[in-house]
Amino acid sequence: MTETTDTMPGWLSDGELEAARGRMPILYINAVPVRVDESGTVTSVGLLLRVGPDGSISRALVAGRVLYHERVRDALLRHLEKDLGPVALPRIPASPQPFTVAEYFPTPGVTPFHDPRQHAVSLAYIVPVSGDCQPRQDALDLVWFTPEEAAGPDVQQEMTGGQGALLRQALAHVGRLE
Amino acid sequence: MTETTDTMPGWLSDGELEAARGRMPILYINAVPVRVDESGTVTSVGLLLRVGPDGSISRALVAGRVLYHERVRDALLRHLEKDLGPVALPRIPASPQPFTVAEYFPTPGVTPFHDPRQHAVSLAYIVPVSGDCQPRQDALDLVWFTPEEAAGPDVQQEMTGGQGALLRQALAHVGRLE
Amino acid sequence: MTETTDTMPGWLSDGELEAARGRMPILYINAVPVRVDESGTVTSVGLLLRVGPDGSISRALVAGRVLYHERVRDALLRHLEKDLGPVALPRIPASPQPFTVAEYFPTPGVTPFHDPRQHAVSLAYIVPVSGDCQPRQDALDLVWFTPEEAAGPDVQQEMTGGQGALLRQALAHVGRLE
Amino acid sequence: MTETTDTMPGWLSDGELEAARGRMPILYINAVPVRVDESGTVTSVGLLLRVGPDGSISRALVAGRVLYHERVRDALLRHLEKDLGPVALPRIPASPQPFTVAEYFPTPGVTPFHDPRQHAVSLAYIVPVSGDCQPRQDALDLVWFTPEEAAGPDVQQEMTGGQGALLRQALAHVGRLE
Repeated sequence: MTETTDTMPGWLSDGELEAARGRMPILYINAVPVRVDESGTVTSVGLLLRVGPDGSISRALVAGRVLYHERVRDALLRHLEKDLGPVALPRIPASPQPFTVAEYFPTPGVTPFHDPRQHAVSLAYIVPVSGDCQPRQDALDLVWFTPEEAAGPDVQQEMTGGQGALLRQALAHVGRLE
Repeated sequence: MTETTDTMPGWLSDGELEAARGRMPILYINAVPVRVDESGTVTSVGLLLRVGPDGSISRALVAGRVLYHERVRDALLRHLEKDLGPVALPRIPASPQPFTVAEYFPTPGVTPFHDPRQHAVSLAYIVPVSGDCQPRQDALDLVWFTPEEAAGPDVQQEMTGGQGALLRQALAHVGRLE
Repeated sequence: MTETTDTMPGWLSDGELEAARGRMPILYINAVPVRVDESGTVTSVGLLLRVGPDGSISRALVAGRVLYHERVRDALLRHLEKDLGPVALPRIPASPQPFTVAEYFPTPGVTPFHDPRQHAVSLAYIVPVSGDCQPRQDALDLVWFTPEEAAGPDVQQEMTGGQGALLRQALAHVGRLE
Repeated sequence: MTETTDTMPGWLSDGELEAARGRMPILYINAVPVRVDESGTVTSVGLLLRVGPDGSISRALVAGRVLYHERVRDALLRHLEKDLGPVALPRIPASPQPFTVAEYFPTPGVTPFHDPRQHAVSLAYIVPVSGDCQPRQDALDLVWFTPEEAAGPDVQQEMTGGQGALLRQALAHVGRLE
């Protein structure tokens, strides 16, 4: 699961994190940023854009680790701020119940989700954002798609590690996978 | 289930609605208005206040019928506006999945929910509101309670028809029933 | 939404039901019968087969009305027995929370769901069945598909009224829409 | 969160697990074993019994770690077999969506859940069991309670670390917290 580097001081050194990654599942969150209208209907979905060293384009959901002694909802808020900027005004869900749990395995094919670096178990949430999104790191942009575009083949083939499937699960959950 | 009269023109005359009420389940929504902090944690719950003809006080959730050719999310918005006023700024959920379904039976004891007038099946949602709430009808006020107060015996005994149980289900769903 | 005729004595005459159908939303259930393995993974999905007067084939989910004074879980059990026979051994969910709510409108395009006869609001559940399924009416058969087949174009184009979309929502909910 | 020792060979030595516990959240599952009737209604809840060194009685939900390269549903099955025996016939949910996420913090008061040893994040599921339960370790028994008893003060005060609150959340989710 691609993600930006944690910029806040962590509780694990890089070496310790690497060691843990080969030994136990690592807890993550995934957030699907959406725009909604007055009635709550999802009108568009925000995907992060990344350009690889070879110029390849990939699109990704907001993702990141939950840190020691951090609540899941605080991890959601931190990663959304990190990726969408400080004035995105995300509406973190009132309930801790995720719409699904995505299990990224280092071995492909065990589940629809794959992360070659680790076994990551990710709690996935849909998060309406009402403010201005300003991706904060050079390599990233945020592009809004209609639900139809997001589920379509062009976007789906630009997503990796099973995040395309996770995005379609999110659209199904909000009744916009048609 | 107590509710205010539908003020918009309905598709059923009062007599027709009465006839249907004895013949088939009637579709309702229930909304639990909440205040949340930046991390989505529920900090308080809004309950409508009603004073009965005998001076008795009762407290109630937002409730009302879904009309013919009306989407559930539009019914939620309409009843929240009717009970909380036009600037409450309710955040209707993106997903149509209710946190529970409350089945109000005319016969007490079949389920925890009871409505002597009818068999009402109510889709129940938690709805954060961020604006100013101005109950629009004289008989109604809106009072905010902490989650602890809302689940406590004083508030619970002022709720009728099983709405106290529904309120505690809502608090459980957001992780605030302690 | 196609369905078999209710065979148990109803509380509404046919004429009364027709009248109500033009005036208010009618409460339905939809059930997606599935086979699961020991770990709960969905291995196949059961669809009803219908042959139209013109020989056209259509496939459908279990569907039917909730009757007056009937609990939703009893309606689920009744319709599953009606369509799958008395020894299908359906495992009705412990929670009343549906995985979604499908709103069938008489006007196409308001939602992904359409029913020309009525405005039906359907609580949708996934129901594992472990017994032997014997569709009880001549016009019906039950065919099991893998999740991949069920989401594929051949099956999808044989479903009507938006039930193909509802089926894919069910597959997404159980993590089998890939 | 009390739990029995993992009896299968782990991927972490005891020392390594201790080290990780102070550095990152550890992924757990909680299962609430229930008996259901034909319509899916929960009729009783199973709680493990433990007798402490001082003779004190405590009651607990099924709990345990998710191991490296283990799916959540396989962890559920493993821990249910470990605690309820090989013929309990648990019905692992088809959907990976937990009814809630319980965050056990080493510091009391951050959430309703507390585990002095670690920061454990637990995916919580309700699991109907239809077979014969034979707790496999001497220190454990399994006792069935009605929903009313399980939510009552006697049982609640015998549960520790917030599991009493988690149990009431489970009862709320299945509509049996009255």
